[in-house]
This record gives sequence, structure tokens and C-alpha cells, in this order.
Amino acid sequence: MWGGRFAEGPAAVMREINASIPFDKRLWRQDIAGSKAHVAMLGARGIVSPADAETIAAGLDQVAGHYEANGVDEDMVLEDIHMQTEARLADAIGPVAGRLHTARSRNDQVATDFRLWVRDAIDETLATLRGFQSALLTRADEHAASVMPGFTHLQSAQPVTLGHHLMAYHAMIARDVGRFTDARARMNRSPLGSAALAGTGFPIDRDMTASALGFDGPMSNSLDGVSDRDFAIEFLTAATQTSLHLSRLAEEFVLWASQPFGFVALSDQWSTGSSIMPQKRNPDAAELVRGHSGRILGCMTALMVTMKGLPLAYSKDMQDDKPPVFEARDLLALSIAAMTGMVESATFKTERMRGVAEAGFATATDLADWLVREAGLPFREAHHVTGRAVKLAEERGIALDALPIADLKAIDARIDERVYDVLSVDASVASRTSFGGTAPDNVRAAVRAARGDET
Amino acid sequence: MWGGRFAEGPAAVMREINASIPFDKRLWRQDIAGSKAHVAMLGARGIVSPADAETIAAGLDQVAGHYEANGVDEDMVLEDIHMQTEARLADAIGPVAGRLHTARSRNDQVATDFRLWVRDAIDETLATLRGFQSALLTRADEHAASVMPGFTHLQSAQPVTLGHHLMAYHAMIARDVGRFTDARARMNRSPLGSAALAGTGFPIDRDMTASALGFDGPMSNSLDGVSDRDFAIEFLTAATQTSLHLSRLAEEFVLWASQPFGFVALSDQWSTGSSIMPQKRNPDAAELVRGHSGRILGCMTALMVTMKGLPLAYSKDMQDDKPPVFEARDLLALSIAAMTGMVESATFKTERMRGVAEAGFATATDLADWLVREAGLPFREAHHVTGRAVKLAEERGIALDALPIADLKAIDARIDERVYDVLSVDASVASRTSFGGTAPDNVRAAVRAARGDET
Amino acid sequence: MWGGRFAEGPAAVMREINASIPFDKRLWRQDIAGSKAHVAMLGARGIVSPADAETIAAGLDQVAGHYEANGVDEDMVLEDIHMQTEARLADAIGPVAGRLHTARSRNDQVATDFRLWVRDAIDETLATLRGFQSALLTRADEHAASVMPGFTHLQSAQPVTLGHHLMAYHAMIARDVGRFTDARARMNRSPLGSAALAGTGFPIDRDMTASALGFDGPMSNSLDGVSDRDFAIEFLTAATQTSLHLSRLAEEFVLWASQPFGFVALSDQWSTGSSIMPQKRNPDAAELVRGHSGRILGCMTALMVTMKGLPLAYSKDMQDDKPPVFEARDLLALSIAAMTGMVESATFKTERMRGVAEAGFATATDLADWLVREAGLPFREAHHVTGRAVKLAEERGIALDALPIADLKAIDARIDERVYDVLSVDASVASRTSFGGTAPDNVRAAVRAARGDET
Amino acid sequence: MWGGRFAEGPAAVMREINASIPFDKRLWRQDIAGSKAHVAMLGARGIVSPADAETIAAGLDQVAGHYEANGVDEDMVLEDIHMQTEARLADAIGPVAGRLHTARSRNDQVATDFRLWVRDAIDETLATLRGFQSALLTRADEHAASVMPGFTHLQSAQPVTLGHHLMAYHAMIARDVGRFTDARARMNRSPLGSAALAGTGFPIDRDMTASALGFDGPMSNSLDGVSDRDFAIEFLTAATQTSLHLSRLAEEFVLWASQPFGFVALSDQWSTGSSIMPQKRNPDAAELVRGHSGRILGCMTALMVTMKGLPLAYSKDMQDDKPPVFEARDLLALSIAAMTGMVESATFKTERMRGVAEAGFATATDLADWLVREAGLPFREAHHVTGRAVKLAEERGIALDALPIADLKAIDARIDERVYDVLSVDASVASRTSFGGTAPDNVRAAVRAARGDET
Repeated sequence: MWGGRFAEGPAAVMREINASIPFDKRLWRQDIAGSKAHVAMLGARGIVSPADAETIAAGLDQVAGHYEANGVDEDMVLEDIHMQTEARLADAIGPVAGRLHTARSRNDQVATDFRLWVRDAIDETLATLRGFQSALLTRADEHAASVMPGFTHLQSAQPVTLGHHLMAYHAMIARDVGRFTDARARMNRSPLGSAALAGTGFPIDRDMTASALGFDGPMSNSLDGVSDRDFAIEFLTAATQTSLHLSRLAEEFVLWASQPFGFVALSDQWSTGSSIMPQKRNPDAAELVRGHSGRILGCMTALMVTMKGLPLAYSKDMQDDKPPVFEARDLLALSIAAMTGMVESATFKTERMRGVAEAGFATATDLADWLVREAGLPFREAHHVTGRAVKLAEERGIALDALPIADLKAIDARIDERVYDVLSVDASVASRTSFGGTAPDNVRAAVRAARGDET
Repeated sequence: MWGGRFAEGPAAVMREINASIPFDKRLWRQDIAGSKAHVAMLGARGIVSPADAETIAAGLDQVAGHYEANGVDEDMVLEDIHMQTEARLADAIGPVAGRLHTARSRNDQVATDFRLWVRDAIDETLATLRGFQSALLTRADEHAASVMPGFTHLQSAQPVTLGHHLMAYHAMIARDVGRFTDARARMNRSPLGSAALAGTGFPIDRDMTASALGFDGPMSNSLDGVSDRDFAIEFLTAATQTSLHLSRLAEEFVLWASQPFGFVALSDQWSTGSSIMPQKRNPDAAELVRGHSGRILGCMTALMVTMKGLPLAYSKDMQDDKPPVFEARDLLALSIAAMTGMVESATFKTERMRGVAEAGFATATDLADWLVREAGLPFREAHHVTGRAVKLAEERGIALDALPIADLKAIDARIDERVYDVLSVDASVASRTSFGGTAPDNVRAAVRAARGDET
Repeated sequence: MWGGRFAEGPAAVMREINASIPFDKRLWRQDIAGSKAHVAMLGARGIVSPADAETIAAGLDQVAGHYEANGVDEDMVLEDIHMQTEARLADAIGPVAGRLHTARSRNDQVATDFRLWVRDAIDETLATLRGFQSALLTRADEHAASVMPGFTHLQSAQPVTLGHHLMAYHAMIARDVGRFTDARARMNRSPLGSAALAGTGFPIDRDMTASALGFDGPMSNSLDGVSDRDFAIEFLTAATQTSLHLSRLAEEFVLWASQPFGFVALSDQWSTGSSIMPQKRNPDAAELVRGHSGRILGCMTALMVTMKGLPLAYSKDMQDDKPPVFEARDLLALSIAAMTGMVESATFKTERMRGVAEAGFATATDLADWLVREAGLPFREAHHVTGRAVKLAEERGIALDALPIADLKAIDARIDERVYDVLSVDASVASRTSFGGTAPDNVRAAVRAARGDET
Repeated sequence: MWGGRFAEGPAAVMREINASIPFDKRLWRQDIAGSKAHVAMLGARGIVSPADAETIAAGLDQVAGHYEANGVDEDMVLEDIHMQTEARLADAIGPVAGRLHTARSRNDQVATDFRLWVRDAIDETLATLRGFQSALLTRADEHAASVMPGFTHLQSAQPVTLGHHLMAYHAMIARDVGRFTDARARMNRSPLGSAALAGTGFPIDRDMTASALGFDGPMSNSLDGVSDRDFAIEFLTAATQTSLHLSRLAEEFVLWASQPFGFVALSDQWSTGSSIMPQKRNPDAAELVRGHSGRILGCMTALMVTMKGLPLAYSKDMQDDKPPVFEARDLLALSIAAMTGMVESATFKTERMRGVAEAGFATATDLADWLVREAGLPFREAHHVTGRAVKLAEERGIALDALPIADLKAIDARIDERVYDVLSVDASVASRTSFGGTAPDNVRAAVRAARGDET
């Protein structure tokens, strides 16, 4: 009936479905910190005696030392990190440990612990995203003038520079940084003191505990304090958006590393080889980053669905908040680190990139724009003339800028020799000086501006 | 082969899969506004002559007038709103219409139009969320002292007030308002001038068009300008979180409206009746709000998955960005409006709520807290004593505050008559005066503070 | 740059993102079985010598014995279970171990191992689902005539029996059983022999290995053999549908266990108590089952998104197939076991259920149907007459069957005394004898039929 | 408060959120069919008189004729297709129309209508999938011997044939066909006769209506009959898996159509051009198919989330079942039709494919296998020898089969001239004759077998 794993019957099943210690032990630092802030406040407000408060605080340090040294036991009977810590504290200091839980509840305790953990995860994420941005800036600066094909529909459309391309990712990550920063600011209120759900009659000082834990202040409603998991969901949505950005660059690295593209050689460090084909490099890390975006999205979905339609205040479903957040955080941290490493260490095959950019008549729009700008043709007519020039070049199997002026004039008499100034890929990219355009000087300016923003 | 719908064969299938006009016609106002800003800039910069610019602007007004009066045709050949408008403009003013498209591309045009539309959707959402908050404040103020059971695990745990309960939703919506506000600020940069993907060589003024369209400035990278759909995804994630909040309140309304609960009577306006059972009121609107959260979550998922792993810059997959956003916006607008109406017009059955709060020994924790606070018992011992008192009351089938003092003293001699001050549900809620607690005065203060924030 | 966890720099990150051994060690039994089938075939076909084949087979048994006794090491250098096993085999039997990998590849090896694992998971799931169905049948039989309110919109609509209600879940689970069974049949083809992606020139016998591993035969296309993960996705969709069914029953148990409903008392085994309120039982297990449906849905989403848009044949993204499947399987197994236990041990409060069914005029449709059937009124007119009777009963605060015949006749003269035969809840349920209806005899017949299906 | 769209206030909002007629009008054919089956049964069982039954049936035909000619009005007051039809029927035949609704309820009516619609959608999907398979078979047969690179990690790994590659998709679609077929069989039970939720006391004949509507029989439990939406979810999961398969081929078409790959030229019919670059073909249809997989997945998510945690029997949330199913069906139909057209009409650039297959030493594993098979080296040693040969060829910039025998012998003396039989890409693919392998004869046999399966 129970399947092989549940040989002990109901008791084993219930213990396993109910216990959170296998995953929430990861909150032990936050659990200790929350308890220390709480007991210091209890002492300051005279809710426990100063001596008891001191004993408890010292006991908590002892427990923390034990966890640091030995890890946290997965004792299914002490089903969560809070009971685990309380039991250890009682072992350490005796019955006075029982006073710690005055004027609080596991409901606000877990809300506090988890919020602190997510806040730490945001801080780590922000630090690594900034490292990734630095890597992008370094490579963008180096390749501010390296011409590559700019794609739409994965068709070569217009030449751009590699630096410009990398800076597009810098801009995406800047929004990710913004989202995590906003999420942090929004979540940085303390639920501690919400007690079970209704607040408490003890004369607690929620500002004091909030401040001790680095919160901007207490949350304003105790029911919301114990039932809110917005902070976790918002972490997950920001993580998912970041991972979607990373998946796009990962896709490009996989494409670029393919033989037909040949735009990039990934370093040994960030690819795997084949004993049989020593020249081969599989872009494993890029593929895994791309794959991880699916899993991070799945984590986000999981928590959202779990929270749907739950009445207030605490329901046990909410215990399922942690595994998806822990998993998403780990996958995102690895993804950012791996993409940073790949960007830092990749060898871009700029000659190959330029070669592809030069094929495919990617400066056709430059010709059309020149016809509008210099020869005064309306836009749609300029398109038509350009189409004829491209067709001619294609028939001859040569590049646009290899067409003799006589042939161009034969297509439209308003064309003159100045047109060659825009027909090469270098001329093309250099000309696109509108703000945000791909001209090498723009790219360098964008890098400088981004560095300025950072410092 | 093609199924019945595709009688014309390939051409019909391709037209149908490719055309966006059936949905993007909804962008017509934004499309006109974007074109007017663009042509004004072209005129100011001398890229087109002032006279042409004026002619085009007037023509655009004519087209807008036509759309306003007649709607937008779903002409599958003019496959999107941009081509539709351009064709109408040419009808109206002749070949000069062809100059409008100078120095821009459908890629930055659609990015601009859609961004403007999403910004408008955010503004509308913010307005309606504030209306919903007002409704919550009004009812919370009215019921600041109405006692109801506070639930954990849907078990009656401690008495709270209905006002406090409603204020928890006010706090959730405040975070939603914050998310939409942050999303608006982050997205409010103009992609116009990114051109196809690389910027342009025309001497355009992106600050001018950005400013004309109410943007805070231009986006910094043209590739990002045409390939970014973060703004749409962030709208969807904020919409989903809001709808999850609404789904919780909707669930509660469905529960509360059930005969066993009997906590609320929904108004005729927001429920449907039964010809056969005139006393019955189905909470249809609440159920639909709860259901809509699933669909909004689905819309968010759709766009995220669509964007996953797309190389830069524009891919046609991105045409699938609009239907999910349009759908989510409509479902969210209806959901907010319906919840606002339900909250405003619901009749709360406060006597029934109080009755349930009084059953179930919901003041047991008040007794335990009193034992700690007034009689100096350690927390865990206080729990034990309380358990014995509850057991006794249960055996006798009476409420905790109906136990004679002698019986309480027999359980623990440290109990005295002052204990009755905390054993009624009114005493219980009144005592929970910690910041964010459920005491009626706290609720009233929270309402006042929230109203202050609004003005 | 790398965050605290990645102190060793790139190497540590790459090892961690790349290694699958922390999770795929769970495939060890399947890995050994697959290798044994492969080497037996190599021997039989003379691709390796019979002696070598025997040595390798014995070595694999040794490795299996080691794993059984000691578990599998998480050695990040031997990054997956295949390399782990190969290394151990080499330790055990020396260089001949190198012959095992002839005519296969890690690509078809992992495809085979994982498919075997999923097949086992399906078999376990089927067994536990049948156990759950038995529990439902037992309780349905017991409560074939226990009247409870049937709800629409969570409003009491018509009386039904608890047995009938439970049999609705039996019908849902029967479809789940069908889906898992179909999925198993569809997936039960062997990828082994697909080699890296193209098949092999060695004279292998794929039928022999397929048969040894219990497959119905080999897959027909080697590229599909290594790139297909349909079997895993189909497991996840079936698991998600099952978990959605369980979430509905879990929701009902949470509702029914609430004080206002009071329809069920969960056993101590499947709920948690409160030291302070000894009478209280939190339906933790039901809530966790409900929550787990969100996580299982998230696992399904994860793998689907990961597979989207992957070109053939093997991409490393596909390494992310296992964690969601493992997680979903564990959550589903716990969910089924817990729901089975809850159903088996719950005490249904049938008097309370009947009481709620009797309130609310739930036999109004019976009156209307009687008017149509016995008095010949058209359906819509019968509804109108019934509405007036309900209104009268409501005004008097009495049940429908307490209305005197004179009053009923005053409403409509065609009513006579026989009407009382349908106005009680027992009469109502007894009358609904249409196939699939709630009449107690129908329920008993449905139980018998279901038991017959089982044997 | 209500936003601009809701100028009329609450009534307008409620009407809009509550009405399903804007989408469920699509069910009109099924609604008429269901009613005709129902009334024929009522007549046959004497529940209504034969004359009334005939009048009603004729009236329903009249209503159907009206719908066929004029479409269905979106009358928000007649909020769904059932009320719409009932009102039209009353207009047509007067009060006798009121007898149609005897012994049924909107709950079983909508369940029946929607189930019939989904069944039709499955039948259409199956027909188009078979058409897609035919297209794959035709092209696979044509290209059974066309060599292309087989990729892992998008790295050229071993040569395969294009026919083999296309047959991998044939195998995937065969599983999709299986899933839709299984889903159809499982859902093909009639809910009609479940009435509101409890069955009915009228002497209805559910077998008769089931049979008239093409069902295999009635559903066994009335509560399940009205609360089940498994059939819709299973349609969506099968649709999502199909669309994921299509997304993989779409991704490949986008890749292959890129200039660096140059493996395919899409026909004009299935791509869009550029006025300015006449040689360019954007793979719009392929991109849209890829994008649609995201939206179909979103539809599936929507309905699953909506159904999560709903208590029995009918809840209004379930009205949200139709829009996602309708949308997914339309997107899938377009996707299948478009992929069929692309496959049928694409020009594969086989010379280019062969060229890439020949680069990159893709026959290295053939050399290694030869060393094992012909020279008796253990697998791992053969790999090492091969690696040295590849390295040498790479240094010289020549293909493996251009290495002189002397140089090969210098690497390992056991190599002899027969090795050249396996070093060309043609020899390589021809050698892979294991069942399911890429050898051209195998591919042709697979095509023949698949065609046999079809007939």
C-alpha cells in the first residue's frame, strides 16, 4: 500500500511529508540571528529578566557554534530548524530556554528567517550580477570596433559591433539589478512580532528587533506578516527574468560555437572536450545555463501555484515555499558564475564574424539611407533602387561595394561616388552614431558611462 | 491536409499565422502617437522638410479620426497596425507618406507602440488598485472592532477583527502598487530611434521623441531597444502577483458565503441567483476572480517561455508578446473591478463571525500569555497549564471564560481572578496592541495612516 | 566575483554546474542493469569474447554490491553515474572493463537508464493509486447512504451521499491509472543501440537488449532514441493531473475539518495537534498534498521549458531532465500515501453532514422535478412554483417538508400529498437512480462494479 | 473607480466577467447536437410527449439554421450559448421549448458540449498530424542518402542522413498521435444525464444519449460528470507536447536558414522577404511555430492552475476552461499546417550539408570503431589512437581520409588500408546498419514501414 519506501506505514509517511528539517536547516544562521534579536528585545523590555536574556543569548551562540562545526541534524522528530534549535538550546542551558519563545510563534519566526535568507540571496545575486556586468564591459570595450553581423530572424540584417552586442546584455542585466534592488527594498520589513497571526499583548518593541536584523521597520499588519510570501515570489520572478536573459546569451554562445558559425571558441575551462575529437569543444556550460532557465521558471511557477487561493493566515502549504527558492537560487548563482566565466575567457573569432557580416549585402539599408539622405529619394523609392542594386550584386556574386559606379548609376542616376563611403561594413557601423547606435565611438562612450555608473 | 479552416491552402495558413492585425490593431492610438512624435522630430531636424512633416502629421490625425470613428480593419494583407496606418496615410496624403518611415523601422516602431500601451495599462491598473484600497479602508474602518476567528490551517486559532483582516489585503495591494510603480519607472525609456537594430546614420534626436512620448529618455542600446520585452514580462509578473492576492480574498469570499460559514452575504449585484432557490446566492464573481488568476499566470508563462533562448535582436516569435499581455490586462481589470465591488457591497454577518470566534477556545493563547506575563510561568509550562484548562472546558462543553475561578485555581494555584480580563474574545483582540496587532485601536490607526499615505 | 560558495574559482563552478552525479546516482540500479544487458549481447554477438563478457558481468555485480552496501560516491570528477560505474568496474576487473563501452555511448546509456527508472516509477505509482482506490471503495461502501450536501459554487445545491462523493474521486483516479498505463506502454521501447546518435556499425542485437530489459522492442530511430524525453514529460503530465485530483480532495478535507463545516475529524496520525488547544487538529497532511500539486506542476513546467526549441540530437540542457522528475515522483508518492491514509482513517461526521444537507432547501429541485413528472408542469413553470414554496418556508424558518399541504396547495393546486415522498433528503437521494446518480443502491452497485474491475 | 471601460458601473463589470457567450458561442453545433440527443431520449422515454419532442427537435434545427446563416449573437444578458439557444428556441416554438430542459442542467449540458468540441478538435488534430507525417515521409524518402552533420551540443558529431533526421520527427509525431488517440478514448464517455450534480429521478436513458452523440457510454458518477475537466487538460498536455516537437524542428529551420548554416532555403510561401534585400528570406512561419509553443504551454498552465484545489462539484472558475483550449487548438492547427507546408516545400541544400559533415572530422568515431572491430583494440585505447590521428589531420588542415596510410600506421601499426572504407562520410552512414541506424537502406526501410503502418 505505501510503496517500498514507506515500510513503517503511516507514521513514516506523515513524518516525511510533514518534516521540513531536510531543507529548512539551511536557515540556521537566520534562525539564530532572529532568536538573538528577539531575546535581546525581551530582555530590554523586561519581558524576560536581563540575566535570562543573557543566558539565552549565550546559549544561542553555543548552538550556532555547534551547527557551524557539525552541521544541522536531520532529526525528523524535531521536525524543523526552529524546534531543532530550541531543543539544542534546552540541552545547553536548561529550562530557561523555554522563555525564548515568549511573545512569538513559529509562524512569525519562519517568516522572519526565510525573509532574511532571501535578502541575503538578493545581496549575493546583486554582487555576482555586477561581476558579470564588469566582464561584459571589459569585453565590450575590447571589441568596440569588431564588426559582426547583426541578426533579425537569425538572418544577417545589418553590421553591428561585438562590443555593441555585448552591451545589449549589459543593459538587460542593469534592469535585473534594478528588479532585485527594488525587491529588496520592498521586502525589507520585519514580520517578527506578528506572533501566531494576531500580534501579542506583551509589550514588545518591533522596531528594536527590526533594526537589529537590518530591516527598515516592522510590517504593518500581523496577518500579512505571517501569510505573505510575496518576497519569495518576487525573488523568483526577478531570478527568472535574469535567467531568461542568460538563456539568450547562452543560446548565442551555443550557436556561435557551432562549426557553421565559428564565431567563438570557448575556453577549455568552460567547455568539455572529446577524447576522440581533440579539436572539439562542447559548450556544456552554456547549454546548462540555457537549461537552468527552464528549471528556474519551474520553481517560480511552483510557488505561485502553491500560494493561489490560500485563505489567511498561515496554511501548511506554505512550507513548500522554501525548496523552489533554494533551488532557484543555486541554479541562478551557478548560471551567473558560469556566464561570467564564459564571457571573460571566450576567444571571439572576429575575422570570421566580419566575413559573415560582409556577406549577405548587410549594408543594403546603408545604401537606401544614403539615397534618402544624400540623393533626396523618398524612403520607399530608395528601397526599390537598393533592391535592384542588391540583385545585380547577387547575380555577379560580388559584394555591394564591389559594384562599379557605372552600374550603380545605371540603376539610378542620382547615385554618385560618395556612396562608397557607406557601403563597407566599417563605414556602416561607423555611421550609426545616433544615441544608442552601434558606432564604435558610441560603444566606447556607453562603456565609459556604465563604468561611471558603477563607481 | 490543412483542416477545414484552411480551404485556400498554404496562402491562407501563412497569412493567418503571420498577420498580427487581428490583435495589434489595439495599438492604434500608440501607433499614431509614436508616428507623430517621430515626424515632428524629423521635421525639427531637417530630415524631412517642415512642410512634409506638417502634411504627414495632419494626415496621421486624419487616420486617427478614421480609426476612432470606424475601428481598424482586419486586413490580412496589410498585416499589422503599422502597415495599415501607413497605407491609410498614403491614401490620405499621397506619396509624401513614404517619408514618414525615414530613420526608423517596424522593429523600433512596434517596440515603442507596445511599450506605450503597457505603460497605459499600468497607469489604469494603479488607478483601479487605489480604488480597491479605498474600498478596503472603508470597510476596515467600519469593522475595526468586529470580532471574527483568525485562522491558521483554516482552524480557528485566535480571535482577530474583520477590519484587521481586510487591512492585510490593503498591505498586499500596497506591495502590488509598488511593483507596478517600479515596473513603470524601469520601462519608461524610449526604444524609438533604435531603427532596425543598429541605430541610424540620420541625425535624429532621440531625446526629443522620448520626451514627446512621455518617456524619461531613450534606451541606451539599439539592439536592446528592439529585442527587449522585459517591460511586458514585468507587467505580467506584477499582474500575476496581484491576481494571486485577489485569488486569496476570492477564496475567502467563496468560503464565507457558504452555508456552514455564513460569514458574508454577497450583494445581488455581485452574485447570481437561482430561480428555484430564491434564498441562494452563488458567488460567481469571486469564483471567476479566483479562476482568472490561473489564466493570468498562464499568460505570464506564455511570454516567458516564448522569450527563452531567443538570440538577438528581433525574432518573429516576439510577435506572440501581445496576446498574453492584452488578455492578462483585461482579466486583471475585470478582477480588480469585481473585487472592489464585492468588498464595497458585501454584508458581513458579524454576529455569526463572533459566534465562531467564541467557539473553539480561541483565547487559549491569551490564557497562556497571561500565565507568563502575570504569573511568571515559563512559556512552555504555561502552555501545559492552558492545555489542561481547555480540556476541562471542553469536557464540560463550556467556554474558557465560563470556567469558575476555583476550577482554574485547582489546575494552577497561580491563577487569579484578573485572568477573566483576557478570556473573552473582545478582551483578547483589545489586548493585542503590539504594532501591527489586531486591537481595534491599532486597526483604526492603520486605516488613518493608510489614508494619510494616499493623500 | 564567484560568490562565497565558489572559492576555488572557475574550476569549482564548472565542476558543479556540469556534474550530474549528485542526482543521477539515483539511477545506479538501472545503470548496472543496462550494462549487463549490453555486455551479454556483446558476448552473444561475438563483439567481445564470451570470457570478457562474463568477466565484465561479474564485475558489474561486484560494483552493484558495493553500491548497495555503501551508496554511490558523489565524486565530481567522475561526473556522472556512468563514469562512476566504469571507473569502479576498471578498479574491479582491470583493462577489460574498457570493452564494455563498445558500440554504445553515454547518450543512449543515459536515455536507457532514465527510461527504466521512469518505468519503475510508473509501476510504483500504479500500485499506490490502486491502494488509494481501495481505500476510497471501502469508505464509499460504508457511506453509500450517508447524506451530505452536494455543492455547486460551494453552495449547498442538492443532497448527495458521501459514498457517491468518494466514488467521484475513484473515477478520477481511474483516469489517472489509465494515463500512467498508456504512458508506460508508449515509452516501453529501448533506446539502447542508438549509440551516440547515428546507430553503429557493430553487429549489435537491439532486440536482445530490449528484451533483457523488459522493453517491448527497440526504438525505431537512433536520433530520436537519444533526443527523446517524451517519456519523462508524459510521466510529469500524468503526475500533475493526479496531483490536481488529490489537491481537490485535500481542499475538501481542509474545508471539512474546519469548525464551521465540521464534516470530518482527521485521525491523529494524519494531523498535528497543539499543546495549548488539545481539541485542535491541523490538517497538515492535506495542506501539504494541496501544496505539493503546485510543486509537481512546477516540475512539469521546468522540463517542458527546458526541451523547448532544442535542436537534435543531444544537448546538455537535457541533463536537467532528472531533478524535476525525481522531485515530482517523490512528492507524488508522498501525496498518494498521505491521502490514502487520510481517507482510510478519517472519521466522517455524518450527523453534521446530514444537518447541513437538510438546511438550505436542498430538495427544491426535487419538488420542481415532481411538479414536472407528477403534475405535468413545464420545467420553467415548475421552477417558478418551487421558488414560491422555498420563499414561504424561508419566511417561516422551516424546512420544505415541514410546510403543510394546505400551504403548498395554495401555491399551486396541482400539488398533492405524494409530494412529501420527495421532500426529505433521504427521499431525494434515493430517487436519483439514473445511471451514475447518487441513490445509495447506485453507489453500492458502483462499488461492486469497481471491485470487479480490479479483480 | 471602474476604469474607463466600465462606465456603466457594477452592472457592466458583472455582466462582462460573468458572460461566457463571447467565447462559448463557438460551441453552438455541439449545443444543438446535445439538445437534439436529449430531447429524442425524453420523447422515447415518455418524459415529454412524442409530439413535443418532435416540435422541439424541429425547432432546434431552425435555431441551428439561424446560427449557420447569421452566427451567434453576443447578447450579454443571454449570458451563454445554452441560454441563447433556449431563448431562440422559445421564439421559434413557444412555451413547449420549456420542456427541453427537463432532467438536465446547464452543468451537464456544458460538460457535454465542451467534451464534444474537444473530441472534434482531437479528430482534426489527428488528421493534420497524419498529413504532417506524410510530408515527412516524402522528404525522408527523397533524402534517405543525403549526408548531413549529426549534431550533439550543436557540434558536428557524426554524419547522418537528412532522411534519418526527418524520420526522427516522424517518430515523435507518432507518439503525439498515440497521445491524442489515447486521450480521445479516455474522454469518450458521456456526462449527459449527470444533471446538476446528483443524477435525476426522471427515467432517463443515458446509454441512448451517449450513443446518439458517439460516446462509448455514460460516465459512471454524476459528480464526476459535472466536475471533470481532465479531457480538456489532457488535450492541452498532448497539444503542448506536440508543439514542443514542432518547436524543435522550427528551431532547426531557423538555424538552417541562417547564412552561416545555409542548409535550407524556405519557399516564398513560407517565409517573408525584404524589399531591400531581395535575396533574403525570413523564416517567419518557423519562428511563429516556435513562439506558439510558449503560448500553448501557457494555455495548459492556465487550465491546470484554475482547476487546482477546487472542491466538487461545479465551480464557476471552470468557466475559464474554454478560452485556453480554444486558443491552444487554433495555435496548434496553424502550427501543424505551417510546419507541413515548410517541410513539403523547403529546398534542402544538400551540398552544403555534406560539406559541413565532411569538415570537423565527423568520422573519427568510425575510425575508433574500426580499430575495435577490425584491429581488436579495447574501446578506450581506440579512442586514444583516433585522437592522435585527428590531431595530425587538424595540424595539416586536411580531412581524416586524406591522411596517407603511412602516417596512420605511424600512429598505430595495427591500422591498414581497409580503414579508408569507413573514413568517408558516405562510408560512415552506410556502415550504421544497426536497427534504427542512419544507413540509407535503413531509412528507406523505415519509410516503407511507416507507410505500411498508415495503410
